Amino acid sequence: MNEKWSQLDRHMSQAGIDTLLITDPKHVYYLTGFASNPHERFLGAVYKRGDEPFLVVPALDEAAARAASDVDQIMTHTDTDNPYALLKQALKGHPGIIGLEKNNLSVTRYEALQAELQFAEARDIGDWLQSMRVIKSAEEVHKLQHAVHLIEEVLKQGLTKVQIGMTETELVAEIEFLMRKAGAEGPSFDTMVLSGEKTALPHGVPGTRKIQAGDLLMFDMGVYAAGYASDITRTFAVGELSDELTRMYNTVLAANEAAIAAIKPGVTFGSIDQAARDVIAEAGYGPYFLHRLGHGLGIDVHEYPSVHGDNQDLLQAGNVFTVEPGIYLPGKGGVRIEDDVLVTEQGVSVLTSYPKELTVIG
Amino acid sequence: MNEKWSQLDRHMSQAGIDTLLITDPKHVYYLTGFASNPHERFLGAVYKRGDEPFLVVPALDEAAARAASDVDQIMTHTDTDNPYALLKQALKGHPGIIGLEKNNLSVTRYEALQAELQFAEARDIGDWLQSMRVIKSAEEVHKLQHAVHLIEEVLKQGLTKVQIGMTETELVAEIEFLMRKAGAEGPSFDTMVLSGEKTALPHGVPGTRKIQAGDLLMFDMGVYAAGYASDITRTFAVGELSDELTRMYNTVLAANEAAIAAIKPGVTFGSIDQAARDVIAEAGYGPYFLHRLGHGLGIDVHEYPSVHGDNQDLLQAGNVFTVEPGIYLPGKGGVRIEDDVLVTEQGVSVLTSYPKELTVIG
Repeated sequence: MNEKWSQLDRHMSQAGIDTLLITDPKHVYYLTGFASNPHERFLGAVYKRGDEPFLVVPALDEAAARAASDVDQIMTHTDTDNPYALLKQALKGHPGIIGLEKNNLSVTRYEALQAELQFAEARDIGDWLQSMRVIKSAEEVHKLQHAVHLIEEVLKQGLTKVQIGMTETELVAEIEFLMRKAGAEGPSFDTMVLSGEKTALPHGVPGTRKIQAGDLLMFDMGVYAAGYASDITRTFAVGELSDELTRMYNTVLAANEAAIAAIKPGVTFGSIDQAARDVIAEAGYGPYFLHRLGHGLGIDVHEYPSVHGDNQDLLQAGNVFTVEPGIYLPGKGGVRIEDDVLVTEQGVSVLTSYPKELTVIG
Repeated sequence: MNEKWSQLDRHMSQAGIDTLLITDPKHVYYLTGFASNPHERFLGAVYKRGDEPFLVVPALDEAAARAASDVDQIMTHTDTDNPYALLKQALKGHPGIIGLEKNNLSVTRYEALQAELQFAEARDIGDWLQSMRVIKSAEEVHKLQHAVHLIEEVLKQGLTKVQIGMTETELVAEIEFLMRKAGAEGPSFDTMVLSGEKTALPHGVPGTRKIQAGDLLMFDMGVYAAGYASDITRTFAVGELSDELTRMYNTVLAANEAAIAAIKPGVTFGSIDQAARDVIAEAGYGPYFLHRLGHGLGIDVHEYPSVHGDNQDLLQAGNVFTVEPGIYLPGKGGVRIEDDVLVTEQGVSVLTSYPKELTVIG
């Protein structure tokens, strides 16, 4: 039983919870070392106080689970088994008060679990894992830094592929090829390359638009490496930009830098968001910064914390999150500059190091 | 209001449901034409009988939603809004009995919706969408066939890249590059290239193992194109195979063909699975066919139906699913051969056409 389980055991003791059921595949990876995508099949890490933790995995993942996890007991279910009945057997008796992840459990699965296990009460313990995962260990920071290095190398090489007349999709193909070549497990989310007026869509989808002179060209991308994600955005100028787009760019850059300068343990996430928002509002672009400043980064590419104005939680050393202010002028274009940062005892360490001043390419 | 909503309206009338809340992004795409990945943000297509359907989308997806969807009213929420409160406003009054997707709604979100909307009762209507989506229209079959054509072209080109000494990951990089070049939106799931004894892991992960003579080499992959997925597996011989692996291959091929021969409207999904399983059991490999025969294919790469032995539902013309028997001998190797099939009035039309006889490469 590793230290993480002991930590959970102490939580359980305090909260009066008898049995723990962890179903988020990322949490299962965090706790056991076994990373998987169970699709619609049931995956669970289970711990009843006084017993050893065990895993319930789809039969076809058994070998992988044995190879990767540090849990001794692994139960498997095939596609015709009822995994909740297996779980009931394995628990050998009533689970008592069960702690589970309400955020990761569908209502359908919850109702099936309840019918089978007849637990006395179910309490949400999603916060426990969240609060454990929000403080990254040195090993985790090392993995995150590696994922950042990989994506920055990909960005550097990717830029050499840019040519006027090339489509966004072609550039995505080049970039994802470079990711794989660099040894990444894959993109950490759909690689985004947007050009021209399409950069004004914060969640735009790369398509057949051809890159042309005067365009803004935005890359928002990341990779998974050793199960940890990176996420970076840089926006470039293809040839000369209009004065308005240049001003927009420099405003976003100032907002990014203001937010980073505000980072230190003990301040609120809301205040970091506000630091960026103030810069953008002062320049008159307030209504065009459409989203929160950032999000936690780790095993999930979007994880706790959510860095938005209303988040009164305090930054702690070991937090890793993105800082990604943006301005989006419909029909004209958008700029976003995104870094990945680590909160340290002294303040902040920026994991991304790719230059941010306005760069003309092509 | 398109025909799909009218169909839902008839279901609601029969079931006594007043308000519908659709939250699965794939269902939202199916109903409205707006495809998105809202990540942890709230996305919903809402329909109260007597009113027009409307969409609730994250603010940063507004432009994309307006461009793609055929729904007139689009409500947006930012990261600091409570989307359930917005929903309550938009419904202008009590939702009455609400129909929602318990399979796609987390317990957390369900509890928040309940607190805000105070609905009288919530019933699961996931089956309605499932039963609508399980019958593909001509247009959908056209899109699926296109996605199949793309992946088969990629497989053909990918095989020319195979070289002794190359790692599985390098081959994945080449293949995903070809997917993008071919115009796919991306892989429909993590591209799997496994070699040698690793082919015995039904859900193995490509790594640094180098391809060598005598290996089995397995490709399990697909692409998304126009929002529809393909999914194909072929297993090749790198040079001469042992007699045992050759026998295994031919058994899987016979099982694949037996299952396809059994497909026609009116028989059970269980009987199709059994047709393949019988062939494998007769050859003495029964315990090594570890998973169901296949799964539905459409907007999701894994969707209804689940093609396993206990599924007593009947095949209907318009169903599209995979047929993918496999044999996995731990430490030795595995073979899987996967086709995508369409059930027709006359029997079956196999969408995949890549040759299946044992092929030696490299």
